[in-house]
Amino acid sequence: MATVNLIEYADASAEVRAIYDDIRAFRKTDFINNFWRALANDPAQLRRTWEGIKAVMAPGALDPLTKELIYIAVSVANSCEYCIHSHTAAARAKGMTEEQFAELMAVIGMAHSTNALVTTMQVAVDDEYNRG
Amino acid sequence: MATVNLIEYADASAEVRAIYDDIRAFRKTDFINNFWRALANDPAQLRRTWEGIKAVMAPGALDPLTKELIYIAVSVANSCEYCIHSHTAAARAKGMTEEQFAELMAVIGMAHSTNALVTTMQVAVDDEYNRG
Amino acid sequence: MATVNLIEYADASAEVRAIYDDIRAFRKTDFINNFWRALANDPAQLRRTWEGIKAVMAPGALDPLTKELIYIAVSVANSCEYCIHSHTAAARAKGMTEEQFAELMAVIGMAHSTNALVTTMQVAVDDEYNRG
Amino acid sequence: MATVNLIEYADASAEVRAIYDDIRAFRKTDFINNFWRALANDPAQLRRTWEGIKAVMAPGALDPLTKELIYIAVSVANSCEYCIHSHTAAARAKGMTEEQFAELMAVIGMAHSTNALVTTMQVAVDDEYNRG
Amino acid sequence: MATVNLIEYADASAEVRAIYDDIRAFRKTDFINNFWRALANDPAQLRRTWEGIKAVMAPGALDPLTKELIYIAVSVANSCEYCIHSHTAAARAKGMTEEQFAELMAVIGMAHSTNALVTTMQVAVDDEYNRG
Amino acid sequence: MATVNLIEYADASAEVRAIYDDIRAFRKTDFINNFWRALANDPAQLRRTWEGIKAVMAPGALDPLTKELIYIAVSVANSCEYCIHSHTAAARAKGMTEEQFAELMAVIGMAHSTNALVTTMQVAVDDEYNRG
Repeated sequence: MATVNLIEYADASAEVRAIYDDIRAFRKTDFINNFWRALANDPAQLRRTWEGIKAVMAPGALDPLTKELIYIAVSVANSCEYCIHSHTAAARAKGMTEEQFAELMAVIGMAHSTNALVTTMQVAVDDEYNRG
Repeated sequence: MATVNLIEYADASAEVRAIYDDIRAFRKTDFINNFWRALANDPAQLRRTWEGIKAVMAPGALDPLTKELIYIAVSVANSCEYCIHSHTAAARAKGMTEEQFAELMAVIGMAHSTNALVTTMQVAVDDEYNRG
Repeated sequence: MATVNLIEYADASAEVRAIYDDIRAFRKTDFINNFWRALANDPAQLRRTWEGIKAVMAPGALDPLTKELIYIAVSVANSCEYCIHSHTAAARAKGMTEEQFAELMAVIGMAHSTNALVTTMQVAVDDEYNRG
Repeated sequence: MATVNLIEYADASAEVRAIYDDIRAFRKTDFINNFWRALANDPAQLRRTWEGIKAVMAPGALDPLTKELIYIAVSVANSCEYCIHSHTAAARAKGMTEEQFAELMAVIGMAHSTNALVTTMQVAVDDEYNRG
Repeated sequence: MATVNLIEYADASAEVRAIYDDIRAFRKTDFINNFWRALANDPAQLRRTWEGIKAVMAPGALDPLTKELIYIAVSVANSCEYCIHSHTAAARAKGMTEEQFAELMAVIGMAHSTNALVTTMQVAVDDEYNRG
Repeated sequence: MATVNLIEYADASAEVRAIYDDIRAFRKTDFINNFWRALANDPAQLRRTWEGIKAVMAPGALDPLTKELIYIAVSVANSCEYCIHSHTAAARAKGMTEEQFAELMAVIGMAHSTNALVTTMQVAVDDEYNRG
């Protein structure tokens, strides 16, 4: 059960429909996933988030698949079930192989483990890491 | 202040020295960072962690720099100051540009934001994400 | 599935029944939500938690609705599905409008984003924030 | 130590200076805190974040102080030292009394406690919380 | 829904079958829980994790039940539903009483509460805790 | 730097002094650590927390050292530097050996790793874990 209603295209305001149309055109699919339909309760939040996603996830110094892998890693750390599913699907749509997913998972597991070990030991940061 | 002592090479057992030697040879540097010197209080943990890191961070279906970016993302989510510094330094040593770091940061920020929005709205996972 | 059983009024000890009665009287409803019925496996924990909630959530320098909004923000950060649902329901019962919920969500999303940006950059705390 | 350099006004590009100027004018102070000076390494991120903050933290259905209290609660959950200091200072500047801060803290402590209790017991969400 | 398939014994490679056989022999049960069947998509990860678990959870300076209680506490902090269920079941199988579970839960709740209070107040570490 | 002042005995109210006296008598030491001196800004919170700690950390179905180990594990997951130091010191004062600390750390590291692996794979909870 959600804490907000999902806004269908037929029930949406002109402002929300315009963003739905942009999502569809940008992604070349009619499918609008639940995240956007839930966000649409606040059109300003919907617009801010969609514009942010478009800007941040665009190809740049990092390729779009690498960005999805990073997104999955953050979503796992935050225990966001929906986000793990949607970004794993997005990564596969962008060409993630099962070998890449297995290595992503191995890095995620290792990082959580060493993060916890470091935190338990309260290790001081080495001077060598200072960029100064 | 740390919760454990740091083990210097001169004070280390033969078992620990052998791992320190392997770290130095593998990384082609004499520098042993504090993480390993703290872990060395438990030689079995030191060996298990070092062998794990070598296996997981090796080039494979994902390149070593991509793995460091994922490591940074996890370390940020876990607020591990030491890990953020050591893996940002490692990423730079592996060629991370400032443009790549800026994009990594943008993805990390965006992911934390949408993770929190999804969690607040308790959005149901779309059937379309089912691999079945 | 839960890791503990839920204790129904009919099966409860006199000590637990007295707390259930107080919850009902205090909240002016017969409804006892699952949290309390689960906590009742440990009557001391049930009492400590209920007394704490009554003291902390009472009107004071902050009004009860503001306290519920803060409770939702913490529950989101902790990914506590049950808590998000129960405290969102409580906030609505205390008068939270959809506009307020949308603004709460916007602040939560923004805060998670800038928290992550700050943590990635390891920004030093400005001297100006020192109260000294 | 930070993982990025701080950009001073004197060294900033015209694009960054324009945002610094807007921050100063909007806040009616010459002080630019380290967060913005660190973000300025990526002018697009600086602009996106500042525009987001201005929109989200503006007076609306929730007053600015309530928004700061929510921001503090999220920052505590994320262990973001810098954010806790900067938003506690901002809350005090917006009139937060010590009584309000004490009650904020009490709610934060209670919420973390019951979040953890619920999660340990894996309590099912009551049907009564369904808005349907 | 999972993001990976579960590997059944009948469909598993010889390498995976050998690990499944070791899990069964070590635990004296035919039951292989879903975690291992999901991990088996990456035989190297399966082996590394199983060998790690065997080494870490073995009787030593801490008894196996104490280790399970610690595992539950971490899993709660990480909101890992599966892990909470599997390790609570494991703890009960190793003799955890309901009184012990209630006390575990009380400590978990208290620790989350005081962690959050300390973090809000940004209390400096007392010199007395320095081992130096 | 802290966000609140520390309350010294000489400056404390009679109510706060009485709690300080109880802490000293209960722990058989004059030392009052910073946590309590910071909490004393809100005498009700000070009392509620101290009474809770006394009740929860008392010997019971779990011994006091086991409770401290659990407290450390939670504090690590929450990245609470102060709490890690104070509870590691408390555990050592209650007899924790270096071997026990090493095993605690190994379990903490392993649990964070498998928590993250499970969460990435979104593994369904086995029916066998249902107590029903």
